[in-house]
Amino acid sequence: MKTATAATMSKRPYAHPLDHLTGDEVVHAAEIVRGERAGMNFVFNTITLKEPPKPVMMSYLGWDKSKPRITHVEREAFVIILEKPTMKVYEAVVSLDNETIKSWKYVPDVQPILTMDEMFEVEELVLKDEGVRAECAELGIKDMSNVFADPWAIARHVNYPGRSKRMMQALMYMRTCEDDNQYAHPLDFVPIIDLGTMKVVDIERIKPRNSKFTRPTIPQMNHNFLPEFIGEENMRKDIKPIIVQQPQGVSFTVKGNEIDWQKWNMRISMNYREGLVIHNVSYKDGDETRPLFYRIAMSEMVVPYADPNTPHHRKHAFDVGEYGMGLCTNSLTLGCDCLGSIYYFDACFNDHNGKPFHVPNAICLHEEDHGVLFKHTDYRNGRAHTVRSRRLVISQIVTVANYDYALYYYFYQDGTFEYEVKATGELNTHVMAEDETPGDYGVTVAPQINAQYHQHFFTMRIDPMIDGPNNSVVQYDSYTSPFPTGHERNKYGNAFLAKPTVLKDTFEAQTTANFETSRFWKIINESRIHPYAKEPVGWKIMSNNMSPFYPSEESVVAQRAPFAKKGLWVTPYNENQMFAGGFYCNQSDGTDNLEVWANRERQNVQNTDIVVWFSFAVTHLPRVEDFPVMPVEHVSMMMKPANFFMCNPALDVPPTNKKVNLSTIAPQPHNDKSSSCCGNNRL
Amino acid sequence: MKTATAATMSKRPYAHPLDHLTGDEVVHAAEIVRGERAGMNFVFNTITLKEPPKPVMMSYLGWDKSKPRITHVEREAFVIILEKPTMKVYEAVVSLDNETIKSWKYVPDVQPILTMDEMFEVEELVLKDEGVRAECAELGIKDMSNVFADPWAIARHVNYPGRSKRMMQALMYMRTCEDDNQYAHPLDFVPIIDLGTMKVVDIERIKPRNSKFTRPTIPQMNHNFLPEFIGEENMRKDIKPIIVQQPQGVSFTVKGNEIDWQKWNMRISMNYREGLVIHNVSYKDGDETRPLFYRIAMSEMVVPYADPNTPHHRKHAFDVGEYGMGLCTNSLTLGCDCLGSIYYFDACFNDHNGKPFHVPNAICLHEEDHGVLFKHTDYRNGRAHTVRSRRLVISQIVTVANYDYALYYYFYQDGTFEYEVKATGELNTHVMAEDETPGDYGVTVAPQINAQYHQHFFTMRIDPMIDGPNNSVVQYDSYTSPFPTGHERNKYGNAFLAKPTVLKDTFEAQTTANFETSRFWKIINESRIHPYAKEPVGWKIMSNNMSPFYPSEESVVAQRAPFAKKGLWVTPYNENQMFAGGFYCNQSDGTDNLEVWANRERQNVQNTDIVVWFSFAVTHLPRVEDFPVMPVEHVSMMMKPANFFMCNPALDVPPTNKKVNLSTIAPQPHNDKSSSCCGNNRL
Repeated sequence: MKTATAATMSKRPYAHPLDHLTGDEVVHAAEIVRGERAGMNFVFNTITLKEPPKPVMMSYLGWDKSKPRITHVEREAFVIILEKPTMKVYEAVVSLDNETIKSWKYVPDVQPILTMDEMFEVEELVLKDEGVRAECAELGIKDMSNVFADPWAIARHVNYPGRSKRMMQALMYMRTCEDDNQYAHPLDFVPIIDLGTMKVVDIERIKPRNSKFTRPTIPQMNHNFLPEFIGEENMRKDIKPIIVQQPQGVSFTVKGNEIDWQKWNMRISMNYREGLVIHNVSYKDGDETRPLFYRIAMSEMVVPYADPNTPHHRKHAFDVGEYGMGLCTNSLTLGCDCLGSIYYFDACFNDHNGKPFHVPNAICLHEEDHGVLFKHTDYRNGRAHTVRSRRLVISQIVTVANYDYALYYYFYQDGTFEYEVKATGELNTHVMAEDETPGDYGVTVAPQINAQYHQHFFTMRIDPMIDGPNNSVVQYDSYTSPFPTGHERNKYGNAFLAKPTVLKDTFEAQTTANFETSRFWKIINESRIHPYAKEPVGWKIMSNNMSPFYPSEESVVAQRAPFAKKGLWVTPYNENQMFAGGFYCNQSDGTDNLEVWANRERQNVQNTDIVVWFSFAVTHLPRVEDFPVMPVEHVSMMMKPANFFMCNPALDVPPTNKKVNLSTIAPQPHNDKSSSCCGNNRL
Repeated sequence: MKTATAATMSKRPYAHPLDHLTGDEVVHAAEIVRGERAGMNFVFNTITLKEPPKPVMMSYLGWDKSKPRITHVEREAFVIILEKPTMKVYEAVVSLDNETIKSWKYVPDVQPILTMDEMFEVEELVLKDEGVRAECAELGIKDMSNVFADPWAIARHVNYPGRSKRMMQALMYMRTCEDDNQYAHPLDFVPIIDLGTMKVVDIERIKPRNSKFTRPTIPQMNHNFLPEFIGEENMRKDIKPIIVQQPQGVSFTVKGNEIDWQKWNMRISMNYREGLVIHNVSYKDGDETRPLFYRIAMSEMVVPYADPNTPHHRKHAFDVGEYGMGLCTNSLTLGCDCLGSIYYFDACFNDHNGKPFHVPNAICLHEEDHGVLFKHTDYRNGRAHTVRSRRLVISQIVTVANYDYALYYYFYQDGTFEYEVKATGELNTHVMAEDETPGDYGVTVAPQINAQYHQHFFTMRIDPMIDGPNNSVVQYDSYTSPFPTGHERNKYGNAFLAKPTVLKDTFEAQTTANFETSRFWKIINESRIHPYAKEPVGWKIMSNNMSPFYPSEESVVAQRAPFAKKGLWVTPYNENQMFAGGFYCNQSDGTDNLEVWANRERQNVQNTDIVVWFSFAVTHLPRVEDFPVMPVEHVSMMMKPANFFMCNPALDVPPTNKKVNLSTIAPQPHNDKSSSCCGNNRL
């Protein structure tokens, strides 16, 4: 193995310490562990890059000049194994350079992330279970091959508390034929599975609310969206193609996982959990390369459901921590998910056997025209100057059972950074009895189909480096002048102002959106004062998609996802604090998460190495129009320079014109532009 | 004249009662007025279509089937003239069919909209004024051809109260050379102009705040963005073109001003004031053409500034009512403002002499790819179904002195309607003395240049017709269950709900955004119940860009723009209530506007012919990066079906694929996708 690996390594001219593990490295790490733990019966839950410590990387990248530059970084894998049948959890750090286990640790009372292997195993197990078959039979199902189980994390179960057992719950559906939409045929019972014994240990019936029936029938009406169900003859015929091309090539260059695009430079990786990660972002400002962000990724997600009936209180998927934005990522298809000239990156994870689990085309990189970047016309002489905006798009799409999330990192020419989630896919549906209603907690999207109200919280972990590692966060609140109209400081009553507040410590730095004050935040570097604005250089952080967290404080989800109760948190950098819901999020009990870290003691977050946790959200009251497949719902956050540069940094973007982009006049019978200028109405 | 007109009319095969006036019709209307008022000395302020009454149009369009269908609608112009030199205002309704003045009215104590003629006349006058020349001389200006005046509406002036005189104020700037950016060189005085006598009647100096200087010098540093100032050699060289083409043609058809696009049908027009107007919107739902909106347009805009010093309290432009979104509209250029296959419409207004003032290419119509419309992957077999979104874009761009607004109406395949404002152009700048600061009211974007905090409110007038003319508005508020955790109705604490409230009358129907409750609204038709959702069919109305109105209640702007204090108003339909700030908005005194109409008495707005007034906004604290030209700031509102259709109405959009859109793999040295699937890191 040693020779092969060395050969592989030597062929990787662009290998970088932050590159995710290759397939060979996954195999290699697994073999090292298996070699040293030959007697154990276990599965590989996780094999992933152990990212080098930030201080090491700061030196390696040349950003920390206080010490001699580190030029070699040891390549390490982080491995989690589950012992069978005890389901005991062990963590290993494996040196790929030295081919040894560097550390080995038994971790009691935790449950690591769920794997794709487990999804398939659990479904198979459930469908074979006698109790499940009896339930199905009672519902009139004759053919078990039409029954499907979506395995979900258990959250917290009253009969199976704690984390000593590895548990799941399964939401049950039926299909009437191949590729039929199962979410149109939900069943009314929920098997509970013990993954240690691989047994269904309980089956819960969901009782109808205010119904004369003891159990609902299965809704039989089909609601499909796949082309064979719609029928070619029923498709719209009047959509002419739009072709997007870059005949002179793309404007970005890629070396390994490093991306250069105009003044931006960054590096990407994809891991099993956060999916896409953006590393080491900088922007070239004249001769100076100014660092902006050490690392940006979606740290956690949570989707609480509103319905008070059991088992809906257990439906609050942590799609990052329980299922993994990497593990659930799609292999993308040219011309479907993105249009134009596309560069793909692949991803690689592991399966239970320690084999690579490859996802070709997992990451899409391309450019998009984004409309007008700026325009001004001098109305005196009509001279117009228009510059069009271009954005660099780095994206992935994940499927977590019914829901699909398309995730986009955008970089713009004027320094704007945007992260957008397009939520699509299928609503989680719940069956109702014929006489049942969703109450105040959902909408009937089709007979007997309840699409329950829910929320989506997306929590970004932003490790900033605005002109250096020591940053602070300032909160801005706008408000009407407190002086009455006529007062010398508000003579005419029009005065309003914006008040900045530095968030000094972890107690102050846990704050929500505020509509009344048009609140936003800035990440600033207090050691660099803007020559014009006379205040620290900064980067604004904002979202128009923030939402209160509606579940009560005592709910399971509030205890497991307290990070979602606040829109912005700031903590001191700590390499062990990567995931807002805790590293062992699956079956988490609320003892290890962002709220716990922030509230442990009052910790300074001013002018130091900080991490910003930013949550944006949408409260989703489904519409009938979201069924059977949901048109994209857009949710996003944005960061942009705010008194950082000396002027609009995109002034050097050349104006576009027709000669270059070949726009044309659309032929239409009455669009003869050679006629008089007011002519289209006066033929 | 009669013969010529008849000939002109007969050549208009697509003439429709809602088409804006042609150039010939403008001339014709002016000649009729001039003919009947031969002895008067006046200028034409406005010559525009008098839109036929809604009851007439409802019959003409076939939407009111209760009476025999009206097949001919009289063509009328609405004309406002200003008598010279008294500046008395007269309104005339002119029948173009019968070539007579149908009505003639003297309107005391009002001032109609400002015209482009007046902009140019006032600037010329100001620059010739001896007092202005003396001010310039004292500031060291030797060449008056370098001085520029932006004429602004006066708002309300303490020395010239009321509306008996037609007044303006001028903001003063300097250029150092041709096409230099004047907003980098603001001057410190404001001439006040009487348009009746055409004289500068006052010159106000803006006093520095907390400064040792009695007056600021002129900032001499240049801040430019036009290409000749940036220099070809300094432009980015690494932006490769993106070409957007529709080789098979566009998907829309245009007949006159009627647009058909997939299941949407609508009609557009452009008038001097609101600019683009969308009329008679419907969506085809199977065999049924379902009416949605009778008329949508931007009714008013207001931009209050935060700085309490005079004359900034008078800076709160009503860009619709004082300047006109039609009068200020740009003539668009192919390949600059929009990309792809473009269809243009022209616009036509009038000048002071009653001649047509043509704007070729005033309206841009085109299609855009808009990313993923919906996608779902079955994770079991990896089968993905992706459908891309297309939108129809109808847009215009206006320049109001320093600011530029690009205005976009979007129609999407899933029934979504969006209105987006892209705010760009130049910040209003104010000169400071060398030792002065902006206080808490602005930011120093360059030495001595203060970009003051301000807000932009955009108020849409939406005349809905959701499945018929009688509609209601429901407000939705989400909130945590009031029952404590453990209560039988909230056993596990996760319950939250959404409460609908019908806004019954004009007192209830004046409401603001509410972050705490994720508030949105629906326009519903109570006479049509959705078969699944068991509630009235509806159309959701929402914006993530709403903002409190920060000026105090007693300020001039709060009195003139009370509509901006609330996010949503509903009033009964009234053909005289078209503009939220009143028809005679220029120099308005607060006696005629939306707040006055709503508060006059408690008027029913439930299940009747209603108008919805929706304001979205942005509170803009400028950044140095917004200078000298501002990257686009996006602000928008959205309406979409909510339990209106029987399912996602875009299910019949065919999936796109590479064969059609010709997407390609971007050539890059290391993007050899024929190699292993995890290959890009393992060369």
